Amino acid sequence: MTEKKNVTFDDIARYTNFSKTTISRYFNNPDSLTLENQQIISDALVKLNYKENKVARILANGKTEFVGIIVPDLYHHFYSEILNQILSTYETFGYKFLVFIGNKNEETERRYLKELLSYKIEGLIILSHTIPSEELAKLPVPIVTIEREDEFVCSVNTDNYLGGYQAANLLARHHCDILVHVNTPTSEKVPAYGRLKAFSDYCTEHGLNHEIILRDLGIAYETSQAQLIPVLEHLDSSYAGMKKGIFLSSDTHANVLLNLLMRRYGCLPEDYLLIGYDNSPISREAVLPISTMGQQIDQLAYEAVSLLVAQMNERKKRRPAVLEKPVHKIIPPVFYRRETTEKP
Amino acid sequence: MTEKKNVTFDDIARYTNFSKTTISRYFNNPDSLTLENQQIISDALVKLNYKENKVARILANGKTEFVGIIVPDLYHHFYSEILNQILSTYETFGYKFLVFIGNKNEETERRYLKELLSYKIEGLIILSHTIPSEELAKLPVPIVTIEREDEFVCSVNTDNYLGGYQAANLLARHHCDILVHVNTPTSEKVPAYGRLKAFSDYCTEHGLNHEIILRDLGIAYETSQAQLIPVLEHLDSSYAGMKKGIFLSSDTHANVLLNLLMRRYGCLPEDYLLIGYDNSPISREAVLPISTMGQQIDQLAYEAVSLLVAQMNERKKRRPAVLEKPVHKIIPPVFYRRETTEKP
Repeated sequence: MTEKKNVTFDDIARYTNFSKTTISRYFNNPDSLTLENQQIISDALVKLNYKENKVARILANGKTEFVGIIVPDLYHHFYSEILNQILSTYETFGYKFLVFIGNKNEETERRYLKELLSYKIEGLIILSHTIPSEELAKLPVPIVTIEREDEFVCSVNTDNYLGGYQAANLLARHHCDILVHVNTPTSEKVPAYGRLKAFSDYCTEHGLNHEIILRDLGIAYETSQAQLIPVLEHLDSSYAGMKKGIFLSSDTHANVLLNLLMRRYGCLPEDYLLIGYDNSPISREAVLPISTMGQQIDQLAYEAVSLLVAQMNERKKRRPAVLEKPVHKIIPPVFYRRETTEKP
Repeated sequence: MTEKKNVTFDDIARYTNFSKTTISRYFNNPDSLTLENQQIISDALVKLNYKENKVARILANGKTEFVGIIVPDLYHHFYSEILNQILSTYETFGYKFLVFIGNKNEETERRYLKELLSYKIEGLIILSHTIPSEELAKLPVPIVTIEREDEFVCSVNTDNYLGGYQAANLLARHHCDILVHVNTPTSEKVPAYGRLKAFSDYCTEHGLNHEIILRDLGIAYETSQAQLIPVLEHLDSSYAGMKKGIFLSSDTHANVLLNLLMRRYGCLPEDYLLIGYDNSPISREAVLPISTMGQQIDQLAYEAVSLLVAQMNERKKRRPAVLEKPVHKIIPPVFYRRETTEKP
């Protein structure tokens, strides 16, 4: 058996008769060396067959180019799409992503976070809801959250209030007799609460018949379906003969309700209008393409990584500027008119 | 500004008057020290407020507990589900995953691989098809592939041949007049080719009318739909009045065809039977739950990580045993009878 051995800074120092500090400078601050000395070290690397070892570089400059991501679940199609979009920023920014799916397991999530920090990750992108932002803000790395409680940390969110307001406005312009919003009970501190608040505000301001239905829709299709079957019974019986405009909290749930309607009636009945939220892939993959108040998921991902990179770069400076208060970026929603609000 | 400083092995050595080698032994081979000396070092860690730094540990033992994953795309619901399942093995094995989505960008994929290796990842799980296994086998870390060409590397695959055979058998037992398989053109070297081969073999052996339809179904819903619209036209016109048994290469594509049928007929017509493949989430989230030849995705993920961990552990031994030839684990498929093969 041959023993493979990595060439170390020690080896290079010994070979060139320079100090280890000088070798380290060659990698991290080459300008501080004369061109001649740079050439000597560079020749030595070739002779010694030195292969870049990022672990050694980490020790030299403390930077890993690793970013942790914590996603709550992959049931909601929004999360798998934003994960997709965040991962694809590798081509732009070069950061590598360590990914964890929380699935509401807070204890494992905390253990994972602790582990990541011991590896010197440079930053964190958090979409899960388990840990309060006040606690996150105390972690020793920059953090950006997406669509979760963010009082004490930087975040990128969709303008949820505008989204909810526009959804209600749209259903009103379609002359719906009753406007309904279906959602999971949501804390006022979560950005998504804005959808619910705005929908309710719009209807109240305009004196429109409306109902807010809150059910724990869960993180599995079967759970959502079990919750939405009685909701559909209620809508059918309480609002028979009325034009019903339904705004759901996500495309994932809009798809569940649309499937129930299609199975019952063989089509989407004329008196039902559905609007989802997110513009996640399921809104296009559903039996009828679902009209949706779209989040600009690619832009949310890009802005989140971009905001994180700016802070990570700042920390590499000799005298990093400290943010006086968290930055909250807001991205406007975009409405996609498809087949559940207008007969083709 | 206060300068934060990590406590290094040097600091601990200086404080305790032990050599750096002794300090390193404390972390990696404590048995080689007397209990008394272990106590001295342990007290020093508390005094110096030493925080575990895994990067330092990596330098000491060369092990990062990082595993790279390369997935071809997240359009096919099989990939997002197996990613979900692989990531959830963190709770069992403790490995952290660096995730990359290839999206057919071979050049970026190669650059990513090269970067990962420079970070001393311990192993790789590869689902993408771009790099031949002969080339993968030369990489300096253990590799396990899932459902891709695997001649020269370890792999975990579903028994695709059995799946295709059973699908044909099932459609035959339902007395279909014509058996159809729809797939993307697939190399004979890819395990998924077995589905196609077995379907064709079964039909030939039993003298059944059948047709194999190969179209590039792409990695976007719109592409799959554009390809499947003329396929449906063809089935409707060429086999009018006949009972049609259709086996599709994935649930993702079965969902596209089912949607086209539902939109045309308002229901799944009696003369159409559909079987998908994968048992991915979309097979349950579709307008009618889709009967599917299921891959045991949780088991594929567990076995892949398990096989990788065994090899990674082997490499940590003083005299690691070398695998004489790649291990190929085969997991049987499981058929899920839902609503597209039997009227409820």
